[in-house]
Amino acid sequence: MSANVKVITIGENVLASNDRAAQQVRQLLNEKGVYMVNVMSSPGSGKTTLLTALVNRMKEKIRIAEMDVDIESSLDAQRVADATGVRTLQIHNEGLCHIDADMTLRAIMEFGVEDTDLLFLENIGNLVCPAEFDTGAHKNIMLLSVPEGDDKPLKYPLMFSVSDLVLITKTDTLDFFDFDLKKAEERIRRLNPAAVILPVSAKTGEGLDELENWLLTQMRQPVRN
Amino acid sequence: MSANVKVITIGENVLASNDRAAQQVRQLLNEKGVYMVNVMSSPGSGKTTLLTALVNRMKEKIRIAEMDVDIESSLDAQRVADATGVRTLQIHNEGLCHIDADMTLRAIMEFGVEDTDLLFLENIGNLVCPAEFDTGAHKNIMLLSVPEGDDKPLKYPLMFSVSDLVLITKTDTLDFFDFDLKKAEERIRRLNPAAVILPVSAKTGEGLDELENWLLTQMRQPVRN
Repeated sequence: MSANVKVITIGENVLASNDRAAQQVRQLLNEKGVYMVNVMSSPGSGKTTLLTALVNRMKEKIRIAEMDVDIESSLDAQRVADATGVRTLQIHNEGLCHIDADMTLRAIMEFGVEDTDLLFLENIGNLVCPAEFDTGAHKNIMLLSVPEGDDKPLKYPLMFSVSDLVLITKTDTLDFFDFDLKKAEERIRRLNPAAVILPVSAKTGEGLDELENWLLTQMRQPVRN
Repeated sequence: MSANVKVITIGENVLASNDRAAQQVRQLLNEKGVYMVNVMSSPGSGKTTLLTALVNRMKEKIRIAEMDVDIESSLDAQRVADATGVRTLQIHNEGLCHIDADMTLRAIMEFGVEDTDLLFLENIGNLVCPAEFDTGAHKNIMLLSVPEGDDKPLKYPLMFSVSDLVLITKTDTLDFFDFDLKKAEERIRRLNPAAVILPVSAKTGEGLDELENWLLTQMRQPVRN
Protein backbone atom coordinates (compact mmCIF):
# COMPACT_ATOMS: atom_id res chain seq x y z
CA MET A 1 0.00 0.00 0.00
CA SER A 2 2.86 2.40 0.70
CA ALA A 3 4.17 2.14 -2.88
CA ASN A 4 0.73 3.10 -4.16
CA VAL A 5 0.43 6.19 -1.93
CA LYS A 6 3.95 7.28 -2.90
CA VAL A 7 3.08 7.29 -6.57
CA ILE A 8 0.00 9.42 -6.04
CA THR A 9 1.71 12.01 -3.84
CA ILE A 10 4.62 12.50 -6.18
CA GLY A 11 2.23 12.63 -9.13
CA GLU A 12 0.65 15.73 -7.62
CA ASN A 13 3.97 17.56 -7.32
CA VAL A 14 4.78 16.71 -10.90
CA LEU A 15 1.39 17.96 -12.06
CA ALA A 16 1.81 21.36 -10.37
CA SER A 17 5.20 21.89 -11.98
CA ASN A 18 3.78 20.59 -15.25
CA ASP A 19 1.09 23.28 -15.28
CA ARG A 20 3.75 26.00 -15.08
CA ALA A 21 5.73 24.39 -17.91
CA ALA A 22 2.59 24.08 -20.04
CA GLN A 23 2.00 27.81 -19.69
CA GLN A 24 5.59 28.41 -20.87
CA VAL A 25 4.95 26.22 -23.91
CA ARG A 26 1.80 28.16 -24.82
CA GLN A 27 3.53 31.53 -24.38
CA LEU A 28 6.33 30.44 -26.68
CA LEU A 29 3.88 29.14 -29.28
CA ASN A 30 1.79 32.31 -29.07
CA GLU A 31 4.87 34.50 -29.60
CA LYS A 32 5.68 32.48 -32.71
CA GLY A 33 2.07 32.36 -33.96
CA VAL A 34 1.90 28.56 -33.80
CA TYR A 35 -1.36 26.77 -32.93
CA MET A 36 -0.74 23.39 -31.26
CA VAL A 37 -3.24 20.54 -31.06
CA ASN A 38 -2.66 17.51 -28.82
CA VAL A 39 -4.13 14.29 -30.26
CA MET A 40 -4.83 11.43 -27.84
CA SER A 41 -6.43 7.96 -27.94
CA SER A 42 -5.98 4.25 -27.17
CA PRO A 43 -3.37 2.36 -29.17
CA GLY A 44 -4.70 1.56 -32.63
CA SER A 45 -7.60 4.02 -32.70
CA GLY A 46 -6.34 5.54 -35.93
CA LYS A 47 -4.47 8.70 -34.90
CA THR A 48 -1.73 8.40 -37.52
CA THR A 49 -4.07 7.42 -40.36
CA LEU A 50 -6.47 10.25 -39.59
CA LEU A 51 -3.71 12.85 -39.18
CA THR A 52 -2.22 11.78 -42.50
CA ALA A 53 -5.56 12.22 -44.30
CA LEU A 54 -6.15 15.55 -42.56
CA VAL A 55 -2.69 16.98 -43.23
CA ASN A 56 -2.99 16.11 -46.92
CA ARG A 57 -6.27 18.07 -47.14
CA MET A 58 -4.93 21.12 -45.29
CA LYS A 59 -1.24 21.39 -46.21
CA GLU A 60 -1.76 23.66 -49.24
CA LYS A 61 -3.78 26.15 -47.19
CA ILE A 62 -1.65 26.44 -44.03
CA ARG A 63 1.86 25.43 -42.89
CA ILE A 64 1.67 22.23 -40.86
CA ALA A 65 4.22 20.25 -38.82
CA GLU A 66 3.80 17.14 -36.70
CA MET A 67 5.50 15.73 -33.59
CA ASP A 68 4.89 12.12 -32.67
CA VAL A 69 5.42 10.45 -29.29
CA ASP A 70 6.28 6.77 -28.91
CA ILE A 71 8.24 4.69 -26.44
CA GLU A 72 11.02 3.74 -28.82
CA SER A 73 9.85 3.27 -32.43
CA SER A 74 9.86 5.97 -35.10
CA LEU A 75 7.17 4.43 -37.27
CA ASP A 76 4.48 7.05 -36.97
CA ALA A 77 6.56 10.17 -37.66
CA GLN A 78 8.01 8.35 -40.66
CA ARG A 79 4.55 7.33 -41.91
CA VAL A 80 3.23 10.89 -41.68
CA ALA A 81 6.35 12.33 -43.35
CA ASP A 82 6.24 9.78 -46.18
CA ALA A 83 2.52 10.21 -46.82
CA THR A 84 2.27 13.99 -46.54
CA GLY A 85 5.72 15.52 -47.08
CA VAL A 86 5.35 17.83 -44.07
CA ARG A 87 8.06 18.17 -41.44
CA THR A 88 7.77 15.64 -38.59
CA LEU A 89 9.66 14.85 -35.40
CA GLN A 90 9.65 11.57 -33.48
CA ILE A 91 9.86 11.94 -29.71
CA HIS A 92 10.94 8.90 -27.69
CA ASN A 93 9.60 9.11 -24.15
CA GLU A 94 11.65 6.21 -22.77
CA GLY A 95 8.87 4.02 -21.48
CA LEU A 96 6.66 6.66 -19.87
CA CYS A 97 2.93 6.47 -20.50
CA HIS A 98 2.55 10.17 -21.34
CA ILE A 99 4.40 13.26 -22.52
CA ASP A 100 4.57 16.22 -20.15
CA ALA A 101 5.00 19.93 -20.86
CA ASP A 102 8.75 19.92 -20.16
CA MET A 103 9.28 17.18 -22.72
CA THR A 104 7.06 19.04 -25.18
CA LEU A 105 9.02 22.25 -24.63
CA ARG A 106 12.32 20.49 -25.22
CA ALA A 107 10.93 18.85 -28.36
CA ILE A 108 9.65 22.18 -29.73
CA MET A 109 13.02 23.86 -29.11
CA GLU A 110 14.89 21.07 -30.89
CA PHE A 111 12.36 20.76 -33.72
CA GLY A 112 12.00 24.50 -34.37
CA VAL A 113 8.52 25.74 -35.18
CA GLU A 114 9.27 28.85 -37.23
CA ASP A 115 7.17 28.86 -40.42
CA THR A 116 4.51 26.68 -38.80
CA ASP A 117 0.85 27.64 -38.45
CA LEU A 118 -0.51 24.38 -37.09
CA LEU A 119 1.51 21.90 -35.01
CA PHE A 120 0.03 18.48 -34.30
CA LEU A 121 1.30 16.56 -31.27
CA GLU A 122 0.39 12.88 -31.66
CA ASN A 123 0.49 11.61 -28.10
CA ILE A 124 1.30 8.06 -27.03
CA GLY A 125 -1.56 5.56 -27.31
CA ASN A 126 -3.09 5.54 -23.84
CA LEU A 127 -6.46 6.57 -22.35
CA VAL A 128 -5.17 7.21 -18.81
CA CYS A 129 -1.90 9.09 -18.32
CA PRO A 130 -1.87 11.62 -21.19
CA ALA A 131 -5.16 13.06 -19.88
CA GLU A 132 -3.40 14.18 -16.69
CA PHE A 133 -0.66 16.24 -18.31
CA ASP A 134 -1.32 19.60 -19.97
CA THR A 135 1.19 19.56 -22.84
CA GLY A 136 0.82 23.26 -23.55
CA ALA A 137 -1.38 22.59 -26.58
CA HIS A 138 -4.17 25.05 -27.37
CA LYS A 139 -6.70 22.27 -27.88
CA ASN A 140 -7.03 18.59 -27.00
CA ILE A 141 -8.53 16.18 -29.50
CA MET A 142 -9.25 12.57 -28.62
CA LEU A 143 -10.24 9.61 -30.79
CA LEU A 144 -12.58 6.82 -29.73
CA SER A 145 -12.68 4.11 -32.39
CA VAL A 146 -15.82 2.07 -33.03
CA PRO A 147 -14.10 -1.31 -32.37
CA GLU A 148 -13.19 -0.17 -28.83
CA GLY A 149 -16.84 0.03 -27.74
CA ASP A 150 -19.27 2.70 -26.57
CA ASP A 151 -18.55 2.09 -22.85
CA LYS A 152 -15.16 3.80 -22.87
CA PRO A 153 -16.40 7.19 -21.53
CA LEU A 154 -17.63 5.35 -18.43
CA LYS A 155 -14.25 3.69 -17.92
CA TYR A 156 -11.79 6.46 -18.82
CA PRO A 157 -13.72 9.58 -17.81
CA LEU A 158 -10.81 12.02 -17.37
CA MET A 159 -9.69 11.65 -20.99
CA PHE A 160 -13.18 12.54 -22.24
CA SER A 161 -13.43 15.43 -19.74
CA VAL A 162 -10.26 17.18 -20.91
CA SER A 163 -10.91 16.87 -24.66
CA ASP A 164 -12.32 19.78 -26.64
CA LEU A 165 -13.17 17.57 -29.59
CA VAL A 166 -14.05 13.86 -29.44
CA LEU A 167 -13.75 12.06 -32.77
CA ILE A 168 -15.60 8.75 -33.13
CA THR A 169 -13.30 7.05 -35.66
CA LYS A 170 -13.58 4.05 -38.03
CA THR A 171 -17.33 4.72 -38.47
CA ASP A 172 -17.11 2.63 -41.66
CA THR A 173 -17.00 -0.42 -39.35
CA LEU A 174 -20.21 0.43 -37.43
CA ASP A 175 -22.03 -2.52 -39.05
CA PHE A 176 -19.50 -5.02 -37.71
CA PHE A 177 -19.43 -3.94 -34.09
CA ASP A 178 -21.95 -3.52 -31.32
CA PHE A 179 -21.35 0.25 -30.94
CA ASP A 180 -24.28 2.55 -30.10
CA LEU A 181 -23.38 6.02 -31.37
CA LYS A 182 -26.20 7.67 -29.43
CA LYS A 183 -25.20 6.01 -26.16
CA ALA A 184 -21.57 7.00 -26.68
CA GLU A 185 -22.57 10.62 -27.30
CA GLU A 186 -24.79 10.73 -24.19
CA ARG A 187 -21.99 9.33 -22.05
CA ILE A 188 -19.49 11.86 -23.39
CA ARG A 189 -21.93 14.78 -22.92
CA ARG A 190 -22.53 13.81 -19.31
CA LEU A 191 -18.78 14.14 -18.62
CA ASN A 192 -18.15 17.11 -20.85
CA PRO A 193 -21.18 19.09 -22.06
CA ALA A 194 -18.97 21.53 -24.02
CA ALA A 195 -17.17 18.86 -26.08
CA VAL A 196 -17.76 18.78 -29.81
CA ILE A 197 -18.42 15.19 -30.95
CA LEU A 198 -17.75 14.23 -34.54
CA PRO A 199 -18.07 10.80 -36.24
CA VAL A 200 -15.29 10.37 -38.82
CA SER A 201 -13.77 7.77 -41.12
CA ALA A 202 -10.39 8.21 -42.77
CA LYS A 203 -11.43 5.44 -45.18
CA THR A 204 -14.70 6.93 -46.48
CA GLY A 205 -13.86 10.57 -45.73
CA GLU A 206 -16.91 10.98 -43.47
CA GLY A 207 -16.55 13.99 -41.17
CA LEU A 208 -13.21 15.22 -42.54
CA ASP A 209 -14.74 18.47 -43.91
CA GLU A 210 -16.23 19.18 -40.50
CA LEU A 211 -12.95 18.33 -38.75
CA GLU A 212 -10.97 20.66 -41.00
CA ASN A 213 -13.51 23.45 -40.47
CA TRP A 214 -13.44 22.95 -36.71
CA LEU A 215 -9.64 23.29 -36.67
CA LEU A 216 -9.59 26.38 -38.91
CA THR A 217 -12.30 28.00 -36.77
CA GLN A 218 -10.36 27.33 -33.56
CA MET A 219 -7.20 28.79 -35.08
CA ARG A 220 -9.03 32.07 -35.79
CA GLN A 221 -10.10 32.49 -32.14
CA PRO A 222 -8.01 34.50 -29.66
CA VAL A 223 -5.49 32.12 -28.02
CA ARG A 224 -5.14 31.56 -24.28
CA ASN A 225 -1.84 31.80 -22.40
CA MET B 1 13.10 18.23 -17.72
CA SER B 2 13.48 17.84 -13.95
CA ALA B 3 9.89 16.64 -13.53
CA ASN B 4 10.55 13.91 -16.07
CA VAL B 5 13.70 12.62 -14.37
CA LYS B 6 11.93 12.62 -11.00
CA VAL B 7 9.19 10.35 -12.28
CA ILE B 8 11.66 7.80 -13.63
CA THR B 9 13.78 7.66 -10.45
CA ILE B 10 10.81 7.24 -8.16
CA GLY B 11 9.38 4.66 -10.52
CA GLU B 12 12.43 2.48 -9.95
CA ASN B 13 12.03 2.55 -6.17
CA VAL B 14 8.40 1.62 -6.53
CA LEU B 15 9.25 -1.27 -8.85
CA ALA B 16 11.78 -2.79 -6.41
CA SER B 17 9.27 -2.73 -3.58
CA ASN B 18 6.63 -4.05 -5.98
CA ASP B 19 8.71 -7.13 -6.76
CA ARG B 20 8.81 -8.02 -3.08
CA ALA B 21 5.05 -7.56 -2.76
CA ALA B 22 4.45 -9.68 -5.87
CA GLN B 23 6.37 -12.54 -4.29
CA GLN B 24 4.16 -12.23 -1.20
CA VAL B 25 1.07 -12.45 -3.39
CA ARG B 26 2.33 -15.59 -5.10
CA GLN B 27 3.27 -17.24 -1.80
CA LEU B 28 -0.21 -16.56 -0.44
CA LEU B 29 -1.85 -17.92 -3.59
CA ASN B 30 0.37 -21.01 -3.59
CA GLU B 31 -0.51 -21.75 0.05
CA LYS B 32 -4.18 -21.60 -0.87
CA GLY B 33 -3.79 -23.52 -4.13
CA VAL B 34 -5.02 -20.64 -6.27
CA TYR B 35 -3.63 -20.07 -9.79
CA MET B 36 -3.78 -16.39 -10.84
CA VAL B 37 -3.67 -15.11 -14.39
CA ASN B 38 -3.19 -11.41 -15.17
CA VAL B 39 -5.02 -10.32 -18.35
CA MET B 40 -3.79 -7.14 -20.06
CA SER B 41 -4.54 -5.18 -23.26
CA SER B 42 -5.49 -1.82 -24.75
CA PRO B 43 -8.95 -0.47 -23.91
CA GLY B 44 -11.57 -2.21 -26.01
CA SER B 45 -9.53 -5.22 -27.11
CA GLY B 46 -12.16 -7.60 -25.80
CA LYS B 47 -10.85 -8.71 -22.37
CA THR B 48 -14.27 -8.85 -20.70
CA THR B 49 -16.03 -10.51 -23.64
CA LEU B 50 -13.33 -13.16 -23.98
CA LEU B 51 -13.14 -13.84 -20.23
CA THR B 52 -16.91 -14.23 -20.11
CA ALA B 53 -16.88 -16.80 -22.93
CA LEU B 54 -13.92 -18.61 -21.36
CA VAL B 55 -15.37 -18.73 -17.83
CA ASN B 56 -18.64 -20.15 -19.15
CA ARG B 57 -16.72 -22.98 -20.84
CA MET B 58 -14.59 -23.80 -17.80
CA LYS B 59 -16.76 -23.06 -14.76
CA GLU B 60 -18.22 -26.59 -14.44
CA LYS B 61 -14.73 -28.13 -14.46
CA ILE B 62 -12.88 -25.86 -12.03
CA ARG B 63 -13.74 -23.16 -9.48
CA ILE B 64 -13.18 -19.73 -11.02
CA ALA B 65 -13.28 -16.18 -9.64
CA GLU B 66 -12.50 -12.85 -11.31
CA MET B 67 -11.16 -9.49 -10.15
CA ASP B 68 -11.53 -6.51 -12.43
CA VAL B 69 -9.57 -3.25 -12.33
CA ASP B 70 -11.02 0.05 -13.51
CA ILE B 71 -10.55 3.69 -12.60
CA GLU B 72 -14.02 4.22 -11.21
CA SER B 73 -16.72 2.19 -13.01
CA SER B 74 -17.93 -1.27 -11.98
CA LEU B 75 -19.21 -2.29 -15.41
CA ASP B 76 -16.85 -5.16 -16.17
CA ALA B 77 -17.09 -7.08 -12.89
CA GLN B 78 -20.87 -6.74 -13.15
CA ARG B 79 -20.86 -7.96 -16.77
CA VAL B 80 -18.80 -11.05 -15.94
CA ALA B 81 -20.91 -11.81 -12.85
CA ASP B 82 -24.18 -11.44 -14.77
CA ALA B 83 -23.03 -13.52 -17.74
CA THR B 84 -21.28 -16.33 -15.85
CA GLY B 85 -22.56 -16.45 -12.27
CA VAL B 86 -19.01 -16.71 -10.84
CA ARG B 87 -17.82 -14.52 -7.98
CA THR B 88 -16.29 -11.22 -9.13
CA LEU B 89 -14.72 -8.19 -7.46
CA GLN B 90 -14.36 -4.71 -8.90
CA ILE B 91 -11.16 -2.89 -7.92
CA HIS B 92 -11.10 0.89 -8.32
CA ASN B 93 -7.53 2.11 -8.76
CA GLU B 94 -8.32 5.82 -8.38
CA GLY B 95 -6.93 7.09 -11.63
CA LEU B 96 -3.69 5.10 -11.81
CA CYS B 97 -2.75 3.46 -15.10
CA HIS B 98 -1.90 0.10 -13.56
CA ILE B 99 -2.47 -2.15 -10.56
CA ASP B 100 0.56 -3.05 -8.45
CA ALA B 101 1.19 -6.06 -6.24
CA ASP B 102 0.24 -4.23 -3.02
CA MET B 103 -3.14 -3.34 -4.47
CA THR B 104 -3.57 -6.91 -5.72
CA LEU B 105 -2.70 -8.29 -2.27
CA ARG B 106 -5.21 -5.99 -0.59
CA ALA B 107 -7.87 -6.98 -3.13
CA ILE B 108 -7.23 -10.71 -2.63
CA MET B 109 -7.46 -10.33 1.17
CA GLU B 110 -10.75 -8.47 0.94
CA PHE B 111 -12.19 -10.71 -1.78
CA GLY B 112 -11.18 -14.01 -0.20
CA VAL B 113 -9.94 -16.71 -2.53
CA GLU B 114 -10.78 -19.86 -0.58
CA ASP B 115 -12.55 -22.37 -2.83
CA THR B 116 -10.94 -20.90 -5.94
CA ASP B 117 -8.79 -22.84 -8.41
CA LEU B 118 -8.34 -20.17 -11.05
CA LEU B 119 -8.39 -16.42 -10.38
CA PHE B 120 -8.47 -14.02 -13.32
CA LEU B 121 -7.20 -10.49 -12.80
CA GLU B 122 -8.57 -8.28 -15.58
CA ASN B 123 -6.11 -5.39 -15.59
CA ILE B 124 -6.92 -1.82 -16.65
CA GLY B 125 -6.93 -1.18 -20.41
CA ASN B 126 -3.41 0.10 -21.11
CA LEU B 127 -0.42 -1.17 -23.10
CA VAL B 128 2.24 0.73 -21.14
CA CYS B 129 2.02 0.82 -17.33
CA PRO B 130 0.58 -2.62 -16.42
CA ALA B 131 3.56 -4.26 -18.16
CA GLU B 132 5.92 -2.71 -15.58
CA PHE B 133 4.23 -4.09 -12.47
CA ASP B 134 4.38 -7.76 -11.50
CA THR B 135 0.96 -8.29 -9.91
CA GLY B 136 1.93 -11.59 -8.36
CA ALA B 137 0.06 -13.55 -11.02
CA HIS B 138 1.49 -16.90 -12.15
CA LYS B 139 1.03 -16.05 -15.82
CA ASN B 140 0.51 -12.93 -17.91
CA ILE B 141 -1.87 -13.02 -20.86
CA MET B 142 -2.21 -10.10 -23.23
CA LEU B 143 -4.73 -9.40 -25.99
CA LEU B 144 -3.95 -7.63 -29.26
CA SER B 145 -7.14 -7.05 -31.22
CA VAL B 146 -7.15 -7.05 -35.02
CA PRO B 147 -8.61 -3.49 -35.29
CA GLU B 148 -5.60 -2.10 -33.35
CA GLY B 149 -3.14 -3.07 -36.09
CA ASP B 150 -0.15 -5.40 -36.47
CA ASP B 151 2.40 -2.67 -35.60
CA LYS B 152 1.66 -2.67 -31.87
CA PRO B 153 4.57 -5.00 -30.88
CA LEU B 154 6.94 -2.40 -32.38
CA LYS B 155 5.36 0.39 -30.38
CA TYR B 156 4.66 -1.22 -27.01
CA PRO B 157 7.48 -3.82 -26.78
CA LEU B 158 7.57 -4.29 -22.99
CA MET B 159 3.96 -5.52 -22.85
CA PHE B 160 4.69 -8.18 -25.47
CA SER B 161 7.96 -9.12 -23.71
CA VAL B 162 6.35 -9.85 -20.34
CA SER B 163 3.40 -11.87 -21.66
CA ASP B 164 3.43 -15.67 -21.60
CA LEU B 165 0.49 -15.89 -23.99
CA VAL B 166 -0.44 -13.35 -26.67
CA LEU B 167 -4.00 -13.64 -27.92
CA ILE B 168 -4.79 -12.06 -31.28
CA THR B 169 -8.48 -11.24 -30.70
CA LYS B 170 -11.46 -10.34 -32.92
CA THR B 171 -10.05 -12.51 -35.74
CA ASP B 172 -13.58 -12.56 -37.20
CA THR B 173 -12.86 -8.98 -38.37
CA LEU B 174 -9.63 -9.84 -40.26
CA ASP B 175 -11.37 -9.16 -43.60
CA PHE B 176 -12.24 -5.60 -42.62
CA PHE B 177 -8.84 -4.45 -41.38
CA ASP B 178 -5.36 -4.24 -42.79
CA PHE B 179 -3.86 -6.65 -40.23
CA ASP B 180 -1.12 -9.07 -41.28
CA LEU B 181 -1.21 -12.03 -38.89
CA LYS B 182 2.17 -13.31 -40.03
CA LYS B 183 3.86 -9.94 -39.56
CA ALA B 184 2.32 -9.57 -36.10
CA GLU B 185 3.59 -13.02 -35.10
CA GLU B 186 7.11 -12.29 -36.38
CA ARG B 187 7.21 -9.02 -34.46
CA ILE B 188 6.05 -10.70 -31.25
CA ARG B 189 8.55 -13.58 -31.63
CA ARG B 190 11.42 -11.13 -32.07
CA LEU B 191 10.60 -9.60 -28.65
CA ASN B 192 9.61 -12.80 -26.92
CA PRO B 193 10.60 -16.10 -28.55
CA ALA B 194 8.98 -18.13 -25.75
CA ALA B 195 5.54 -16.53 -26.01
CA VAL B 196 2.64 -18.67 -27.18
CA ILE B 197 0.60 -16.83 -29.82
CA LEU B 198 -3.02 -17.77 -30.37
CA PRO B 199 -5.58 -16.21 -32.74
CA VAL B 200 -9.03 -16.19 -31.10
CA SER B 201 -12.54 -14.88 -31.61
CA ALA B 202 -15.13 -14.80 -28.83
CA LYS B 203 -17.76 -14.39 -31.58
CA THR B 204 -16.95 -17.46 -33.70
CA GLY B 205 -15.29 -19.49 -30.93
CA GLU B 206 -12.01 -19.77 -32.87
CA GLY B 207 -9.10 -20.66 -30.59
CA LEU B 208 -11.14 -21.05 -27.38
CA ASP B 209 -10.43 -24.79 -27.12
CA GLU B 210 -6.71 -24.09 -27.42
CA LEU B 211 -6.93 -21.26 -24.88
CA GLU B 212 -8.72 -23.47 -22.36
CA ASN B 213 -6.18 -26.26 -22.88
CA TRP B 214 -3.29 -23.85 -22.48
CA LEU B 215 -4.68 -22.64 -19.13
CA LEU B 216 -5.39 -26.14 -17.81
CA THR B 217 -1.89 -27.26 -18.82
CA GLN B 218 -0.27 -24.30 -17.05
CA MET B 219 -2.27 -25.00 -13.90
CA ARG B 220 -0.88 -28.54 -13.77
CA GLN B 221 2.75 -27.34 -13.84
CA PRO B 222 4.70 -26.73 -10.61
CA VAL B 223 4.13 -23.10 -9.56
CA ARG B 224 6.88 -20.55 -8.96
CA ASN B 225 7.18 -18.46 -5.80
